[in-house]
Amino acid sequence: MINLNWTVEEQDVAQQAIKTAYDREAQALIHKIVHETPAIQDIDAVWQLHDYLSAKRHQMDGKYDNRHPVLIFVFANLLKEGWLSLEDLQGLEPDKLAKISALAKMT
Amino acid sequence: MINLNWTVEEQDVAQQAIKTAYDREAQALIHKIVHETPAIQDIDAVWQLHDYLSAKRHQMDGKYDNRHPVLIFVFANLLKEGWLSLEDLQGLEPDKLAKISALAKMT
Repeated sequence: MINLNWTVEEQDVAQQAIKTAYDREAQALIHKIVHETPAIQDIDAVWQLHDYLSAKRHQMDGKYDNRHPVLIFVFANLLKEGWLSLEDLQGLEPDKLAKISALAKMT
Repeated sequence: MINLNWTVEEQDVAQQAIKTAYDREAQALIHKIVHETPAIQDIDAVWQLHDYLSAKRHQMDGKYDNRHPVLIFVFANLLKEGWLSLEDLQGLEPDKLAKISALAKMT
């Protein structure tokens, strides 16, 4: 499965889809930070915010891996998490879309 | 200088002063976070907030070291940074206060 070939056009679609998903997740994170932080009243909550951002950053750095061999898994995961829909991946070969879709349901 | 003896009463004063300074610095940090975070508009600013909290946490963890041998240096530093005044340290021996005050001016 990881040896699928990616055409130049598919690589463009893939890069754009990754950027779209990253931007959506980033916006959701910004929304959360901006709306929840003003309620902070004690230092423990500040350190909890720090822990949350540490985990989120680590998770997002890993999640948006755009090396070709892992792209199928990346997209399956983003589909499952709702940051992408199959429409965002139009332009990929039907075979890849089917694999991504199937993996998203399996994981 | 690090072999000064601390009476039980002085240890109480010292613990209270450290708590006072920590609480003041924590409140200043909370104020900053609560007031600056709502202006965040992009993900880079979120990661900058994360970097800032990482540095601040590391700095505060180190700064409020309450082992007796380093307390003179801890207080000199807190005096210099303005998180404590000499009034917050009343109850310590005049000799210690003089050393703390002198160190605060030197560093």
